[in-house]
Amino acid sequence: MIQNPIRPTLSLDAPGKRHGHLKLPYSRNDSAWGAVMIPITVIVGKPGPTALLTGANHGDEYEGPIALQALAHEIEPEDVTGRLIIVPYMNTPAFRAGTRVSPLDQVNLNRAFPGAPGGSVTQKIAHYFNDTLVPMADLVVDFHSGGKTLDFVPFACAHYLDDATQQAACVAAVTAFNAPYTLMLREIDAVGMYDTAVEEQGKTFVTTELGGGGTATARSAGIAHKGIRNVLKHAGILPGAPEIAPTVMLDMPDDDCYHTAPEAGLIEPMADLGETVTQGQPLARIWPLDRSGAAPAVVHAQRDGVVVARHFPGLVQLGDTLAVLAVEAG
Amino acid sequence: MIQNPIRPTLSLDAPGKRHGHLKLPYSRNDSAWGAVMIPITVIVGKPGPTALLTGANHGDEYEGPIALQALAHEIEPEDVTGRLIIVPYMNTPAFRAGTRVSPLDQVNLNRAFPGAPGGSVTQKIAHYFNDTLVPMADLVVDFHSGGKTLDFVPFACAHYLDDATQQAACVAAVTAFNAPYTLMLREIDAVGMYDTAVEEQGKTFVTTELGGGGTATARSAGIAHKGIRNVLKHAGILPGAPEIAPTVMLDMPDDDCYHTAPEAGLIEPMADLGETVTQGQPLARIWPLDRSGAAPAVVHAQRDGVVVARHFPGLVQLGDTLAVLAVEAG
Amino acid sequence: MIQNPIRPTLSLDAPGKRHGHLKLPYSRNDSAWGAVMIPITVIVGKPGPTALLTGANHGDEYEGPIALQALAHEIEPEDVTGRLIIVPYMNTPAFRAGTRVSPLDQVNLNRAFPGAPGGSVTQKIAHYFNDTLVPMADLVVDFHSGGKTLDFVPFACAHYLDDATQQAACVAAVTAFNAPYTLMLREIDAVGMYDTAVEEQGKTFVTTELGGGGTATARSAGIAHKGIRNVLKHAGILPGAPEIAPTVMLDMPDDDCYHTAPEAGLIEPMADLGETVTQGQPLARIWPLDRSGAAPAVVHAQRDGVVVARHFPGLVQLGDTLAVLAVEAG
Amino acid sequence: MIQNPIRPTLSLDAPGKRHGHLKLPYSRNDSAWGAVMIPITVIVGKPGPTALLTGANHGDEYEGPIALQALAHEIEPEDVTGRLIIVPYMNTPAFRAGTRVSPLDQVNLNRAFPGAPGGSVTQKIAHYFNDTLVPMADLVVDFHSGGKTLDFVPFACAHYLDDATQQAACVAAVTAFNAPYTLMLREIDAVGMYDTAVEEQGKTFVTTELGGGGTATARSAGIAHKGIRNVLKHAGILPGAPEIAPTVMLDMPDDDCYHTAPEAGLIEPMADLGETVTQGQPLARIWPLDRSGAAPAVVHAQRDGVVVARHFPGLVQLGDTLAVLAVEAG
Amino acid sequence: MIQNPIRPTLSLDAPGKRHGHLKLPYSRNDSAWGAVMIPITVIVGKPGPTALLTGANHGDEYEGPIALQALAHEIEPEDVTGRLIIVPYMNTPAFRAGTRVSPLDQVNLNRAFPGAPGGSVTQKIAHYFNDTLVPMADLVVDFHSGGKTLDFVPFACAHYLDDATQQAACVAAVTAFNAPYTLMLREIDAVGMYDTAVEEQGKTFVTTELGGGGTATARSAGIAHKGIRNVLKHAGILPGAPEIAPTVMLDMPDDDCYHTAPEAGLIEPMADLGETVTQGQPLARIWPLDRSGAAPAVVHAQRDGVVVARHFPGLVQLGDTLAVLAVEAG
Amino acid sequence: MIQNPIRPTLSLDAPGKRHGHLKLPYSRNDSAWGAVMIPITVIVGKPGPTALLTGANHGDEYEGPIALQALAHEIEPEDVTGRLIIVPYMNTPAFRAGTRVSPLDQVNLNRAFPGAPGGSVTQKIAHYFNDTLVPMADLVVDFHSGGKTLDFVPFACAHYLDDATQQAACVAAVTAFNAPYTLMLREIDAVGMYDTAVEEQGKTFVTTELGGGGTATARSAGIAHKGIRNVLKHAGILPGAPEIAPTVMLDMPDDDCYHTAPEAGLIEPMADLGETVTQGQPLARIWPLDRSGAAPAVVHAQRDGVVVARHFPGLVQLGDTLAVLAVEAG
Repeated sequence: MIQNPIRPTLSLDAPGKRHGHLKLPYSRNDSAWGAVMIPITVIVGKPGPTALLTGANHGDEYEGPIALQALAHEIEPEDVTGRLIIVPYMNTPAFRAGTRVSPLDQVNLNRAFPGAPGGSVTQKIAHYFNDTLVPMADLVVDFHSGGKTLDFVPFACAHYLDDATQQAACVAAVTAFNAPYTLMLREIDAVGMYDTAVEEQGKTFVTTELGGGGTATARSAGIAHKGIRNVLKHAGILPGAPEIAPTVMLDMPDDDCYHTAPEAGLIEPMADLGETVTQGQPLARIWPLDRSGAAPAVVHAQRDGVVVARHFPGLVQLGDTLAVLAVEAG
Repeated sequence: MIQNPIRPTLSLDAPGKRHGHLKLPYSRNDSAWGAVMIPITVIVGKPGPTALLTGANHGDEYEGPIALQALAHEIEPEDVTGRLIIVPYMNTPAFRAGTRVSPLDQVNLNRAFPGAPGGSVTQKIAHYFNDTLVPMADLVVDFHSGGKTLDFVPFACAHYLDDATQQAACVAAVTAFNAPYTLMLREIDAVGMYDTAVEEQGKTFVTTELGGGGTATARSAGIAHKGIRNVLKHAGILPGAPEIAPTVMLDMPDDDCYHTAPEAGLIEPMADLGETVTQGQPLARIWPLDRSGAAPAVVHAQRDGVVVARHFPGLVQLGDTLAVLAVEAG
Repeated sequence: MIQNPIRPTLSLDAPGKRHGHLKLPYSRNDSAWGAVMIPITVIVGKPGPTALLTGANHGDEYEGPIALQALAHEIEPEDVTGRLIIVPYMNTPAFRAGTRVSPLDQVNLNRAFPGAPGGSVTQKIAHYFNDTLVPMADLVVDFHSGGKTLDFVPFACAHYLDDATQQAACVAAVTAFNAPYTLMLREIDAVGMYDTAVEEQGKTFVTTELGGGGTATARSAGIAHKGIRNVLKHAGILPGAPEIAPTVMLDMPDDDCYHTAPEAGLIEPMADLGETVTQGQPLARIWPLDRSGAAPAVVHAQRDGVVVARHFPGLVQLGDTLAVLAVEAG
Repeated sequence: MIQNPIRPTLSLDAPGKRHGHLKLPYSRNDSAWGAVMIPITVIVGKPGPTALLTGANHGDEYEGPIALQALAHEIEPEDVTGRLIIVPYMNTPAFRAGTRVSPLDQVNLNRAFPGAPGGSVTQKIAHYFNDTLVPMADLVVDFHSGGKTLDFVPFACAHYLDDATQQAACVAAVTAFNAPYTLMLREIDAVGMYDTAVEEQGKTFVTTELGGGGTATARSAGIAHKGIRNVLKHAGILPGAPEIAPTVMLDMPDDDCYHTAPEAGLIEPMADLGETVTQGQPLARIWPLDRSGAAPAVVHAQRDGVVVARHFPGLVQLGDTLAVLAVEAG
Repeated sequence: MIQNPIRPTLSLDAPGKRHGHLKLPYSRNDSAWGAVMIPITVIVGKPGPTALLTGANHGDEYEGPIALQALAHEIEPEDVTGRLIIVPYMNTPAFRAGTRVSPLDQVNLNRAFPGAPGGSVTQKIAHYFNDTLVPMADLVVDFHSGGKTLDFVPFACAHYLDDATQQAACVAAVTAFNAPYTLMLREIDAVGMYDTAVEEQGKTFVTTELGGGGTATARSAGIAHKGIRNVLKHAGILPGAPEIAPTVMLDMPDDDCYHTAPEAGLIEPMADLGETVTQGQPLARIWPLDRSGAAPAVVHAQRDGVVVARHFPGLVQLGDTLAVLAVEAG
Repeated sequence: MIQNPIRPTLSLDAPGKRHGHLKLPYSRNDSAWGAVMIPITVIVGKPGPTALLTGANHGDEYEGPIALQALAHEIEPEDVTGRLIIVPYMNTPAFRAGTRVSPLDQVNLNRAFPGAPGGSVTQKIAHYFNDTLVPMADLVVDFHSGGKTLDFVPFACAHYLDDATQQAACVAAVTAFNAPYTLMLREIDAVGMYDTAVEEQGKTFVTTELGGGGTATARSAGIAHKGIRNVLKHAGILPGAPEIAPTVMLDMPDDDCYHTAPEAGLIEPMADLGETVTQGQPLARIWPLDRSGAAPAVVHAQRDGVVVARHFPGLVQLGDTLAVLAVEAG
């Protein structure tokens, strides 16, 4: 029976506020007795529920890390009814490298669950969350954005679940997050996702996509700041009531929402995020890379909808997802 | 006397419209008799002035390549009074790689002028433009955007020049471009720039910064489409009058406009592009990369102004330019 | 139960001729929602058997891709009795990179069978062929050549199998291929090979080695063109009779056929492909890399035979296979 | 005045036979006081002319290194009238890496002449040959082949020179080499070539292209063995008369001899080296890399001629030289 | 049932002395039919026990390879009662690269046991030792040093084992090694270690740490030379009695022995290897990398002890083991 | 006339103590408006001479950076008569990377003088020191150690100079440094060295080699701490008299002091640093990398002397300097 070698350098239980690391020994060519050090803050207040809050599951997504660093810095134990376990840079190696997947093993943390205690670095991180931290939690919030290669309209998201009570709890928390857009999603390929691992343990789960391109703005960071505090207020962990503004409810009814690049080339977007398009309208033109003056490939909307996601870099490969449409839910 | 080995595969002079390449022989490990092939379109109509139009001087800037591919595809000789020489991907190797500088020699094309006929690939490209193409032109438009690491409010730009007549011609062309913002600039470190090389040959010169982040949007591409046609109309090369909307005139009066990162870390922007800030207002917070819960470094505005440029990626190094302010010109 | 995520973008069954891709979603740092796109052509004619035809199992072998691209381009449904499933670039990532193994996971596709639906990119490709495409086929032809580091006399090959009927079918098809050389082989280390996976499903299987060095010639491409049409005629899928010329039957009776480099160095071949040598005759000299004038190591033929394979690059490492002999079969 | 730091570890003048190195101090991250060590053999016999013999000017060309290692091993001072200076691996760093250009500075040695004593490693090597070894020589033979990316019919070559006497001496030596093909060439872009540097010093110069693909065969090595001994016999340095067989005289009369790839893709050659083609005949087809079933680009012969060179790897880039024709000289 | 493909090129049993290789076929991009060749010497004398002796389990540790090369060169069969199986470079690919872990698969050989016959190169090596060589042995000696990133006082080491008889045999052999320091150790994380694999087979096992920094000295090599001969004399395989000098017995009683870097930076050691320190005494200062003049972090001894190990490179990462203390055993 | 773009972020003249950076704008793919930031501390006290103190001229040498960081932290203006300009990490990019030469341009800073204001990053740094900082100084101390690939007995060093007065000043300062060893040196290849650039400006110059291997010890750091304070006391900049202990005076009389590796292999040192050897005594054995049991190459001392430098890594290349001897000066 292999034990997960990750050890926290602080108490996860004692009252008060502490900053430390999850220490994962990592022997490598440039440090035989080195370690991966994942920053963690624990704030324990009055008795109450536990919230596990994570950013940088993918290393190039920034709204979560910003909001969680601010929370870890600003919240005091006396503000808390319950416990906050805050891990702003869940996949620290990827976050330090500014990449989606870990530079240490090329593994996508969000497809590595439930993880393996004797596996690669990313598999060990997944296993530690799955077996140690998630079981401690009542509520789990995992921040995502589009990263360097995707851009999204800002939304919080809940999944369709088999357990109606759990789904209702998730929807309530996501609604409390109150991003400008709110989405109900049925993941097609949920194997290995942190979302799935958390939901299968029966926890209330909130996830987001708050922007993208490998950057954050004052506006997108503001959505994250407000959203996480709203969720914690909703859960009774922070005092006060959530601040609620209007949100647009979205749904992705079918595969026609997804538009794929039919050729490699230079993308000229013809509709921007948040724009409403009708079936047949050009979404983008793709210009060739090796010559000038030739006709572009044109990608037309396969259905009516709102542009909610797009390929971010200026160049695209054949087969990349170019744009995603959603429809406003009834 | 070394000759520049670049040869066009088409006539630069004959009437009509042609697409071809600037062919630069390039012997390398994976093709001993290989070449760098830079796409070029030439459109020669009725007698008139020559416009030399370039994109991707830096390889990760996309509005120019989009607008110039569209122009090369859509304009016909009968539309033209004079000649269009269109090079959408001036630094083709960098454009193909999606990088600012050339992957072949790590040289920044916009600091390589006047170039060298026996130098590296980028130096040969610079020399060919400097000695062959620019001398053919009356008007030169070079598109820039922020690339993967900077983001700008969209502006067209002219330089303060010693020759008042030339400066007036440039200002008139830049004004005709009619981007949402218009900037007068005195380059501090102009050595090696294409701008300088063109201006020193007495040409009318327009440059731009139309967005950034290594992407384009329908909106930013639209600014480029309109701008280039406006400039060509202004020059009498395309028929009709420029379409003019209001623009904000900007100036950068002093070094206090530039804000530098005092530490490496995670950037939380506190003011977005286009926002007006006052001296002392926080522009950004920088959170540490190796721990949670610590206080961030806060960067305050050194003067009043509008945020016109910012560091784009979510992480920043000590010494990187974090944000730039400008003021509205009288 | 993990599902293989590969999906064809076309029907594998409908009558007619279609070109599309096998789409394998592949999330990576430079495209979070990207894909590996493997070109595929399906031609369905009158009812009859199915042939599955593959090239570039190893990415640096070119005769198969050439012959299959020509076939996909030239054959029409009315020519076909049965179905052709043509995948010219089976290991597309390796083919695009010009490498034997995939640049995405460093896995050798031809040692990855039966594959894994939740494994790495190459393991998913192996699994999709093993579980989806091979079961559809009656006849499987997989083209190989020597790649960048080996060179072969051109031969088609069948394996000794436990099932005499299956072996006879394979031998008949290989004989119909009618390469200049024909080989019967007992693979020593057959674990993980596509050959083994296909044969274990009871299919008629043809494989080849048609040259090497990471190139093709008009001659070697011609052998592939004729061979694949011959096999399809033999199977009754294409009309007409195979064109048959003389072939040399070969056998590799023992381990002495294999000659290994006893030192690293510069190879001077002393017998060329197709040459008959006698035991003790020098096959090659190996000159040292760090000095001149010293005596070379000489590698002598361990037995009589014909040189049928050789290490291609000019430099060799200790332990590399330097040359292989075969004998003409009775 | 900077001195070239290269020093031979043996005497270049004393009678007898010695093996050593040209030692070039080279400080680098993995050896602060390291060196590049270029093997050299000097054989001094009875008084007579000096021949400077070099291989691996490009590091992936093998016939020269093989023939020169054999010569250095087999020739004794009593066989020699004059002096042999043998450098089998002129660009040792590239030869060890198996690459055309040096891995230390990415410089092509054959475009680095006359070199620079304070330059990069390759520039220092060029300068040492230019200023120290070439002046010692009466006769210079520099072996080339196609390397990993080109393949040639085997020829020896002389250049058209302004000095008729020197040209006649070169032609006589090239004729004595007696390769299967013999070529007269006027280099278009001779700047920086070793050939030019040697010829400008008034020396008799022989160069070759003896095959390619980054390999050698018994046949191509045999041409090199015979050729170098023939030249040395012709010069009176080795005893006896050259062995002469028929050779085909070739000429490249115009630019139409050179055929360039109009697209990137998979090459299907339709005529092999040494084949005679007529204008309009297809030389090659280029199949697309991203899809199957589409029509290939076809490259037709621009004139009548013999195929004397071709792009070797199976894939090609837009602009690469695909094939070269020559005509038999009167 | 997958078979391990490693084959020795020599007999492991026949009387006499032989040098050869363990040949592991390894197909890769630069040699499709290549191999990893691990040098091995077998010396079989009069009947007696078998000793299996290994160096370079980690590729950047040099005392073992030196002592074992000398042994393989100097010992003759008539000196031996029993059998010596000497593998100086156990992890040959890492040894050739000068790295701790294998460059072929990034696997740490000393965490890869019991290995896998169908796994990566390193896993195959582990499996071959575990299943083939270790079962042949009575006594196993595996040399370690600190490698490029750690430095140790020179010690031999035995583990606390459940089997008291086996432990006593190990302690006796370690005592016979007679390094300047001798350590009893209880491995915390023994999963995958060669040590564990050997001990679980009931063998007598000796391991060492004889220096570090990626170098050896005459002194440290001398300790290895003497130690291995002493152990073989103790086992009766070599004649004569061990040479015994005083040794310091060490123990690591608790986790406070390990000192971790609290920040990344430049290390200033304040106590050297072998020095005795008292609790609270500064062990090292860590200076910041991005500025001058700031106060360093100071790491104080957590307990009294002798400095027995330290981080070797001048720079350190947060979480690296900085220094280890031990205490003299009663 | 190109201006050097480096600007200090602090005053170099004003009284008091300041910490800042030398800011060198550096546009690169991952930060278009980035910078290289070289830490600098300036301490201005009572009127007096200026000392310019530098470490990490080579980025993998640590005693200088340690001593200078301590000095910058501990010295106050009231301790100083004159001015201290302290640059602990002269080649900051190399220091951050832990490499001898800069990772940005692969240039060796200590061969880049007098530098170039429009050159690469390292050339700009050299030029700024040469043209701006050195002219301000009376006394220059530049710390060196062996780096990752060399190890030295600790010495301070002066050069033989044409100006006897200047040489006497240098010798006096070097003597005041009072390292365990003191060396007089005549650089053979002084072109491009900082030493030469400083001495040619007539300054008093001290350099050192204080250890090596890419690490520091408490002992070697202590030599640096004492030495720099001694030199500053000697110069009257710090109060008090130098602390003087015995030193060994060394000289390197001829080229026989340098011993070169005759083969690549595994080094077994047979004499350690500081040991006295006699001509013919073995200094090292070199064991082959590809086989076991063969005889090693033995390198014998070419003359009597003390081992003062050695190749540090366990593996060596042909031509690397293996060991250097010096003799005690009369």
